[in-house]
Amino acid sequence: MPVGTKGTVKGLTPGDLREVGAGIILGNTYHLYLRPGSDLIREAGGLHDFMGWNGPILTDSGGYQVFSLSETRRISEEGVEFTSVYDGSSHVFTPELTTRVQEELGSDIAMVLDECPPANASRAYHEESLRRTARWSRRSKEAHEKRDQALFGIVQGGLYPNLREESLGRTVEIGFDGYAVGGLSVGESREEMLETLALTAPRLPSERPRYFMGIGDPVGILQVIALGVDMFDCVLPTRLARHGAALTPEGRLNLKNAKYRRDFGPLDPECSCEACAGYSRAYLAHLVRENELLGHRLVTLHNVRFTVDLCLKARREIKAGRFEEWSRSWISRYRGSDHPRTDELE
Amino acid sequence: MPVGTKGTVKGLTPGDLREVGAGIILGNTYHLYLRPGSDLIREAGGLHDFMGWNGPILTDSGGYQVFSLSETRRISEEGVEFTSVYDGSSHVFTPELTTRVQEELGSDIAMVLDECPPANASRAYHEESLRRTARWSRRSKEAHEKRDQALFGIVQGGLYPNLREESLGRTVEIGFDGYAVGGLSVGESREEMLETLALTAPRLPSERPRYFMGIGDPVGILQVIALGVDMFDCVLPTRLARHGAALTPEGRLNLKNAKYRRDFGPLDPECSCEACAGYSRAYLAHLVRENELLGHRLVTLHNVRFTVDLCLKARREIKAGRFEEWSRSWISRYRGSDHPRTDELE
Repeated sequence: MPVGTKGTVKGLTPGDLREVGAGIILGNTYHLYLRPGSDLIREAGGLHDFMGWNGPILTDSGGYQVFSLSETRRISEEGVEFTSVYDGSSHVFTPELTTRVQEELGSDIAMVLDECPPANASRAYHEESLRRTARWSRRSKEAHEKRDQALFGIVQGGLYPNLREESLGRTVEIGFDGYAVGGLSVGESREEMLETLALTAPRLPSERPRYFMGIGDPVGILQVIALGVDMFDCVLPTRLARHGAALTPEGRLNLKNAKYRRDFGPLDPECSCEACAGYSRAYLAHLVRENELLGHRLVTLHNVRFTVDLCLKARREIKAGRFEEWSRSWISRYRGSDHPRTDELE
Repeated sequence: MPVGTKGTVKGLTPGDLREVGAGIILGNTYHLYLRPGSDLIREAGGLHDFMGWNGPILTDSGGYQVFSLSETRRISEEGVEFTSVYDGSSHVFTPELTTRVQEELGSDIAMVLDECPPANASRAYHEESLRRTARWSRRSKEAHEKRDQALFGIVQGGLYPNLREESLGRTVEIGFDGYAVGGLSVGESREEMLETLALTAPRLPSERPRYFMGIGDPVGILQVIALGVDMFDCVLPTRLARHGAALTPEGRLNLKNAKYRRDFGPLDPECSCEACAGYSRAYLAHLVRENELLGHRLVTLHNVRFTVDLCLKARREIKAGRFEEWSRSWISRYRGSDHPRTDELE
């Protein structure tokens, strides 16, 4: 899912998104609630009409942003009080409110309100937190009235296998249309992430979609797919693009590197997106160096296309029963694991 | 001519430009010479290939930018030495060099090197300057070798009728494929500009295109067309867009104004561009407030379409012999003269 934080996947129109094959996008409740306001978006006919995208949309509950963006927050049984990253104003998210807000946004998939503690929080804290998240999840479900909107639960529990198991049991017991694995890709190592996911994913109901929150680098996508994950999101492909980094089958290509100044070949010879079909690396490198809007736009278009294509290929290989072999070969060609550094996600 | 300063009309692809009906665009020799370098663009096959635009391109000679952007400059008979706005490095533009650079860029129309003194320079200075520009113009023409590239001369002379007449005579005597009126729209009042143009334009050879350098506001365009001008360029429509101001038949619409937050109608109901057909004022206002790339892109698309449409309508009305009446009615509907403030052009 390309991320459309504020009601736009940065630089792209809905037409561009359709052209690169995006089947679903993500919107951020935290941002849209604060700017322009979910009441305004409801008046516009919902997020689909507001932004002109008629494909599926998943909205998160805002829980992650409250914990990652807001300078101060105070958690209680009722919900979480936080200060807006925009203007410092004070707000309270409760499970009931974030459910109503997502109903106003009119997304196709809504998420329960969860707490996302840092990976290095104590075991005791993670235990207390996952139980509160389970109670919030039940309240989200009870508040949820929109019949044509799916509601997903979120499994927390940090890196503790027993806590993940407990959280999973409590979440599945409540019963949701799909299940997300949250609280990973938040600063722990890639190995810790995969180990924890490997214990969690197989126990999720197999007839429901499994959503891994916050992964978007090519190798990571293949790694979580191998563990049974169906859906994921990350700002990485679009954010990298705005920093001049393009995704290619050989790894990240930093267009600011001097060697691309006179490289008149296409960005990715295997790609047929508008950026690769119509322009040279030299031209894109020039745009990126000059911080031109068109550079952000074209590299974003390519990175989203590249990531969507990778998922479509993975699906095809799964159906053909060749996923493991294909994935191993794909990863060995890609330089480095490309695990995003924390500062790239902030 | 929409302005593609650095080899891109900011935010738009060549496909967008074709879609909004742009028949010719402008490239800036000063910028392209410094970044990425005209030698690199020549290696790429010229500016058309480099940026993927197969329509006509006019390049200026860089003279205006040397005088408006560079912090220091030293004029001699040979040419002008100046410091780069990018890194302070020292460069020299001579008529021979800017002609060769434009040949490397491969534009369809090249301009002679001219000096563009401030409107408030003394009469004596303007006189000295226009004579040097005439000598530079002759050297530009003598250096010009590219047979499939037109070369235009530039009339200077400030606001002094006699000096304009002298400059025009000297320029026409040398003989060019087209003639520009330069040194206006540089800080003088709109009235002074039109008075001076009214004395100059009718004396230009009627069988050659007449190019007014640096006008792009809707009313100004109609005013110079009325005086017989065929071509013009200005960053105004694209720059206004990036500041959230849209052009409409009723005047400038500032999308940051609170009243558009909940305005779910189209930006300009009379326009069929992608921005007007697919989005509401409320959505565009949200994008502009959040400084989203897509906001810059969509409003730019509209402003270029609006300006191109205005010119196409003017052409139609001229052919039908109704220009004056139509233009008067159009201007009376448009709020204010919309003469750009100097700070909007810097």
